Amino acid sequence: MTSTESRSPSGETLSSGILSAMREVLGSPSQMIPLHEPEFRGNEGAFVAECIETGWVSSVGSYVTRFEKDLAALHDLPHAVATSSGTAALHTCLAVAGVEPGDEVLIPALTFVATANAVSYASATPHFVDSEPRSLGVDAAKLRTYLLEAARVEGDRLVNRATGARIRALIATHIFGHPCDLDGLKELAAEFHLVFIEDAAESIGSAYKDQPTGRHGELAALSFNGNKVVTTGGGGAVLTSSPAHAERAKHLTTTARVPHRWGYTHDEVGFNYRLPNLNAALGCGQLEQLSGMIDRKRDLSARYAASFAEVETARFLLEPEGTRSNYWLNALVLAPEFAGQRDQLLTDLNDANYMSRPLWTLMHSLPMYSSCPRMDLSEAESLESRVINIPSSPRLADTPR
Amino acid sequence: MTSTESRSPSGETLSSGILSAMREVLGSPSQMIPLHEPEFRGNEGAFVAECIETGWVSSVGSYVTRFEKDLAALHDLPHAVATSSGTAALHTCLAVAGVEPGDEVLIPALTFVATANAVSYASATPHFVDSEPRSLGVDAAKLRTYLLEAARVEGDRLVNRATGARIRALIATHIFGHPCDLDGLKELAAEFHLVFIEDAAESIGSAYKDQPTGRHGELAALSFNGNKVVTTGGGGAVLTSSPAHAERAKHLTTTARVPHRWGYTHDEVGFNYRLPNLNAALGCGQLEQLSGMIDRKRDLSARYAASFAEVETARFLLEPEGTRSNYWLNALVLAPEFAGQRDQLLTDLNDANYMSRPLWTLMHSLPMYSSCPRMDLSEAESLESRVINIPSSPRLADTPR
Repeated sequence: MTSTESRSPSGETLSSGILSAMREVLGSPSQMIPLHEPEFRGNEGAFVAECIETGWVSSVGSYVTRFEKDLAALHDLPHAVATSSGTAALHTCLAVAGVEPGDEVLIPALTFVATANAVSYASATPHFVDSEPRSLGVDAAKLRTYLLEAARVEGDRLVNRATGARIRALIATHIFGHPCDLDGLKELAAEFHLVFIEDAAESIGSAYKDQPTGRHGELAALSFNGNKVVTTGGGGAVLTSSPAHAERAKHLTTTARVPHRWGYTHDEVGFNYRLPNLNAALGCGQLEQLSGMIDRKRDLSARYAASFAEVETARFLLEPEGTRSNYWLNALVLAPEFAGQRDQLLTDLNDANYMSRPLWTLMHSLPMYSSCPRMDLSEAESLESRVINIPSSPRLADTPR
Repeated sequence: MTSTESRSPSGETLSSGILSAMREVLGSPSQMIPLHEPEFRGNEGAFVAECIETGWVSSVGSYVTRFEKDLAALHDLPHAVATSSGTAALHTCLAVAGVEPGDEVLIPALTFVATANAVSYASATPHFVDSEPRSLGVDAAKLRTYLLEAARVEGDRLVNRATGARIRALIATHIFGHPCDLDGLKELAAEFHLVFIEDAAESIGSAYKDQPTGRHGELAALSFNGNKVVTTGGGGAVLTSSPAHAERAKHLTTTARVPHRWGYTHDEVGFNYRLPNLNAALGCGQLEQLSGMIDRKRDLSARYAASFAEVETARFLLEPEGTRSNYWLNALVLAPEFAGQRDQLLTDLNDANYMSRPLWTLMHSLPMYSSCPRMDLSEAESLESRVINIPSSPRLADTPR
């Protein structure tokens, strides 16, 4: 312990109290416990083998169709369009939303870089907004106050007073699977003529007021990267209730090819964002397991919550009231006076084989986005200094008590 | 037969002579013979099953490393970087080549749309060049004559006299697997200070003067889409002899993340173009089969060549002298007087269950590229009206004689 370390009122150091709570849930691992591992306990292997046996591995195949149908059903929506990654899904959402070169898109500073990159791919500019500590998602009230000052409505357009650019859309990320303030954000999007897009990359299976995340925005993006609750190896999907949006998403993600018996022609600049059938087969097997995986993840989270209840230096991040989280990544929020010890804690946790990491570097701190427009980001900055993730794989629920 | 149909000197109509030659090679199929089907006769299933069993399905895994190593070895190059698609590989090549917004990139009008789209993704402008009938690839001599008139060299920059834009790179596609005039094009690229990029999406296993295609350019792109000789479901790769290019390609395709024990930070706008381990496993199994598949494809092509030797209305497209083609897609070139009957022939072939298709619509005829700069494209236009593809799967070599 160095002289700069704070102690809690009862005298525990940051790392000692947290390590003790971790041990209570996960024991003392002799090798690194990953942050989030996929698991394949159902038909994943059988479905993938079938692709190889039948030769249907690529961009057309029955598993792509089934995966899209299963995803739509899970979200009680008529349409899902599978893509090659969550990033591709976000980019497609922006294209379908009509975001044009030079537009601005409101996104949280506190998100994974894919959200900002997707805006760049659309030749638009990310405009960073602050988060609130309950869900770690966009703070609707603070954003409203900001927009009333920083922007003006002209007809059905929102214009940034400082840059003169149109602000076209708002993307809200459900951080770590915890649903953000969807009612507040939808209301705000309507007031300011913004297309509302859910970045539900982390929140498959989560619900806001009993409705799945991903069905609240005009469009939503899912991710099936290997670190997500449901994985296809790499993949994503666009969700929407609009038949026109779904058709356009499918067209854009399949190189904008014009259907013809034999001809190869394309009517706009499209993308090769198709999810291969092989990966969709894995996804179909995973979706069959989703409910059980979430039950076990929530069991793990409940054990963390109980174990951290007595820890004074950090709180375990709980799902916001009125929501049901998939608890994709479990998170601790350090008390403000311990912010300066985050990196020491991360070193200690990783040294003890509990893989842990901080929040992503905030978007406005990345060199390529440092000059983008932004509002006051003090809450996101405070959270960045205090939030860490701890191991969250569903299999950890099987750790002996 | 309608009154507008031409007949060959010996009196055969276009379709009757070609259908007869097709029957000689493929018999009279009772169901559609696809243009190109993948086949998995080796370890593909076992490798993919291992990914599921071990849980390593995503963007990090031993099959990605092995696939990259195998691809590098196949091309006698030190580096290969696997990507999520051939389009992604082309886009990455352009980014690594230093193509900047507003630059122009010379590409054939006669290619798949991915080549032009990749240029668009780099915020650059495709500049279309003509092809020659021997390889269907870029005509180096005609392009040289054009550039001497249409462009000027300023120091180490080539500038389009009409637009004032820098012409930064030349992409040459090995159409249907037939190597294009690599010596002529490399010489031209050096003379005009162009980065030379091989679009080897169609030509894995082909060779030019005993050297594999994909190792002649400063960079090259491969594709492993489901219709290619080697498939990963969907995928691609960047090839290069330059360690710096390889490192940058890896960085850009993995979200430009800065390596750190736990931190998530990114130093430029990167892409999520990683090939999942699941798909790489399939590719490793496929590469083990490549040599045999090409042998069988070449056997099929030899049978087509023999069967079409007597046909007066069309020639079977042979590999250019000094090259060895993988014959990805077999092609017929109709005699000029039969150009007007191409679509009737395609109808007749498809009706007879021989899946057939014309060339891709030329890039300058697509609405989004119709105003891009271009040279005289008369040869490409002539070829478009006369070239068709016919079934090319390796398994067709097993058709009883």
